[in-house]
Amino acid sequence: MTGEAEAQILAAIDQSFDRAIEDIRAAIRIPGISKSGERLEEMAEWVAAYLRNLGAEVTVHPGRIAPIVEGDLRSPGAEYTLLFYTLYDVQPADGNEWSSPPFEAAIVDAPGGKRLVGRGAFNSKGPLVGFFCVVRAFRDAGVPLPVNIQFLIEGEEEIGSPSLEPHIRANIERFRRCDGAFLPYLGTNTKGETPIRLGFKGLGFIEFAVEGGAWGGPAKYDVHAMHSGWLASPGWELISALTTLQDRNGHLTIDEFPVPAGPDADDRALIAQAAKDLQAETFLSELGAQRFKHEGSFETQLTHFLFDPTLNLDGIWIGTTPPGVEPATHMAQRASAILDLRFVPGMQLEATFALIRQHLDRRGFQHVKMTPRSAYPASKCSAREPIVQALIASCRKHSDKVTVFPIHAGAAPLYLFSEVIGIPFAFGGLGHGGRPHAPDEYLLVDSMRAYFRCVTSFLFALGED
Amino acid sequence: MTGEAEAQILAAIDQSFDRAIEDIRAAIRIPGISKSGERLEEMAEWVAAYLRNLGAEVTVHPGRIAPIVEGDLRSPGAEYTLLFYTLYDVQPADGNEWSSPPFEAAIVDAPGGKRLVGRGAFNSKGPLVGFFCVVRAFRDAGVPLPVNIQFLIEGEEEIGSPSLEPHIRANIERFRRCDGAFLPYLGTNTKGETPIRLGFKGLGFIEFAVEGGAWGGPAKYDVHAMHSGWLASPGWELISALTTLQDRNGHLTIDEFPVPAGPDADDRALIAQAAKDLQAETFLSELGAQRFKHEGSFETQLTHFLFDPTLNLDGIWIGTTPPGVEPATHMAQRASAILDLRFVPGMQLEATFALIRQHLDRRGFQHVKMTPRSAYPASKCSAREPIVQALIASCRKHSDKVTVFPIHAGAAPLYLFSEVIGIPFAFGGLGHGGRPHAPDEYLLVDSMRAYFRCVTSFLFALGED
Repeated sequence: MTGEAEAQILAAIDQSFDRAIEDIRAAIRIPGISKSGERLEEMAEWVAAYLRNLGAEVTVHPGRIAPIVEGDLRSPGAEYTLLFYTLYDVQPADGNEWSSPPFEAAIVDAPGGKRLVGRGAFNSKGPLVGFFCVVRAFRDAGVPLPVNIQFLIEGEEEIGSPSLEPHIRANIERFRRCDGAFLPYLGTNTKGETPIRLGFKGLGFIEFAVEGGAWGGPAKYDVHAMHSGWLASPGWELISALTTLQDRNGHLTIDEFPVPAGPDADDRALIAQAAKDLQAETFLSELGAQRFKHEGSFETQLTHFLFDPTLNLDGIWIGTTPPGVEPATHMAQRASAILDLRFVPGMQLEATFALIRQHLDRRGFQHVKMTPRSAYPASKCSAREPIVQALIASCRKHSDKVTVFPIHAGAAPLYLFSEVIGIPFAFGGLGHGGRPHAPDEYLLVDSMRAYFRCVTSFLFALGED
Repeated sequence: MTGEAEAQILAAIDQSFDRAIEDIRAAIRIPGISKSGERLEEMAEWVAAYLRNLGAEVTVHPGRIAPIVEGDLRSPGAEYTLLFYTLYDVQPADGNEWSSPPFEAAIVDAPGGKRLVGRGAFNSKGPLVGFFCVVRAFRDAGVPLPVNIQFLIEGEEEIGSPSLEPHIRANIERFRRCDGAFLPYLGTNTKGETPIRLGFKGLGFIEFAVEGGAWGGPAKYDVHAMHSGWLASPGWELISALTTLQDRNGHLTIDEFPVPAGPDADDRALIAQAAKDLQAETFLSELGAQRFKHEGSFETQLTHFLFDPTLNLDGIWIGTTPPGVEPATHMAQRASAILDLRFVPGMQLEATFALIRQHLDRRGFQHVKMTPRSAYPASKCSAREPIVQALIASCRKHSDKVTVFPIHAGAAPLYLFSEVIGIPFAFGGLGHGGRPHAPDEYLLVDSMRAYFRCVTSFLFALGED
């Protein structure tokens, strides 16, 4: 019976395909830019109105700068409650760099097929409105939704979601009613492969800064370079301190840093399979790199990539001048750097910062100021979770090139679901788009059929559990 | 007899003081900016005409962008030939930042006495034209000059003197006729103390750069920071390489680097005297610093300051953005730094660069490109040289606060005199000015009397030897 209903919705969404694309275009035409505040209220109201039209009970909650839209859509007889989370805000777009205006949502011919070009097409109005359209297809067909859906749609994701965690914590009981969270993503790459990741690393930015002071160095202003014979150099102190934190291979060498657990048996099996399905050369080529930094097999490389905590040097400023301008022959009074520390599962935020501080202090670097700017931990769901199984199965139902990774080397704050709310999550989906945050952001129009199909099958799979 | 003649010239130069100041102002009013090329030929011709008027046989030699003016002024019966070297070019000046226009040469009231404000007043048209005025006083008084003077006046000093060394080497025999070189300087500080330095450190700029390539790292473009798990980081490689070159105290740790000879007995005596005459607190206060980097007495600090080779970090660029702009969460494909290496006496240029290269290679840093940009060695004259004795004595004759340092921690290419030509040199003089290369460059008008007097006595002292 589920099979018949699923076939019916898959047919309905195929028939209403053009209308779905038009709805996505309508959403793109309302910018909703969280960095500038442009038309955020209007975009929030558009989302709220759409949800009401789907039959959801809608509430709109004030955020720091953009409302959070919630919708509660109950389906008689459904046992599973899905928390659907995504964003309605977008990054700014300078129209001068676009081949068609960013908020016109033009459909243009391109080598791989027609593209819908516009800010938010890929990230994330395509998946947002596309999901709505699937839900509408159930309503239009008179087929009950297999699951209850609780919508949580924010408008501050592109500025770091400052209101989301407080909102979740303030309403935690409402979210704990949900059985699992889904974060949609047009996850198919240009080669038609769809990776699914079962988690994300955590991320913390740390500023390290050294200024001359009681410890030594020039405390008031830059001094002539000749004084490096008798004054300590803030710049040298900074790079000396930083280089004690990891070895030449980028392995953290922080005193007493607990060795992370690394991949478990399930993770290792997924990595082994990924190493068979994929090619090291493809990754290297896309990165513009000629070799990985570790010795060993591709499986070993993938394990490092996915399970090593890393400390990346994002930027450093020591006597820095604009490009082409010679620096003064000075010892800079101040030196600073911003690094991003990627947390793997099991790695504690505050404890790690405290170990770094202690490590520096032990080496006489008390004067190296360390300021963690914001941080969140890793998040990860077992491949055995029903919601994860449902997403993998529904993607594989409509594509034969799905690879499951135990975790994403990139970071996203999905600990909000796995840790704060305490429910499993699934992230991903079929469909292709690209150029997020860049000019000519797009989604591949035809690929949205695969997105609609996998979302449809996903809802049915959840309902069956 | 010399005493009488000296007294006569000292009186004459005092009487023609206002005229001398007017001549300096006239020179300032012709910019002669080597960085822009503005009115260089005109300034060169003004110098040439002045020298002709003094009775010198003048030749003007083309330089890369500004002529080199030479003058040969023979004095019947004089045995000593002095090479007088200085510059007629100046740094650019943005008039908006000046309290009076930089090329008007205004005389303004200031707390310490009237100032002549203008670009070049201190560096170096005051000492240049002031020296001419002393020579003119001999001519006007009918007193023979105690020495022959060979003038060497260039117009490219502020852009690094690109024509000077080739010119000297091409005409080396003419310069080897000279017995010693004099480089005038208004050396008295705001407290009325006049340090005299018997040499200069050498200076070499080195660019270190790392780009991704066959060794590893991203070779085409910056990549997302998450890839630091499996790609080597050019930025970390750069700072890892740099921190092997010196210890936390800034002592060079280059493999096989020969320990420099350091101060000899004469140098140590001068340092001991300087440590008695001067206050550590004065230096620290002027540097805006609270402590020196080494332990030990002020004499120890001065020894490090003057005799340690140093490697200063002038600028570093890794993922660097303008101030206030957050860096991308990227691993930069390219990292670079510019350092200045200060050479002490006895330290060889090419051999040192070769040792650094070998040191990096031994540690697996073959991919850290090292590009020495320009370099010259240290230069130093014994305090026992007659020309040095003459300068010290003539300064002490007119000031009781003269301190002799064995060397300057700053760099200047006086190896051209000590090494290329092979004659001793003396650098310095009484008189006060300030703010070279900065707005409101000035000389203290009344202090030029001390300059004229010490130059006069210096010429007589040389003639007596």
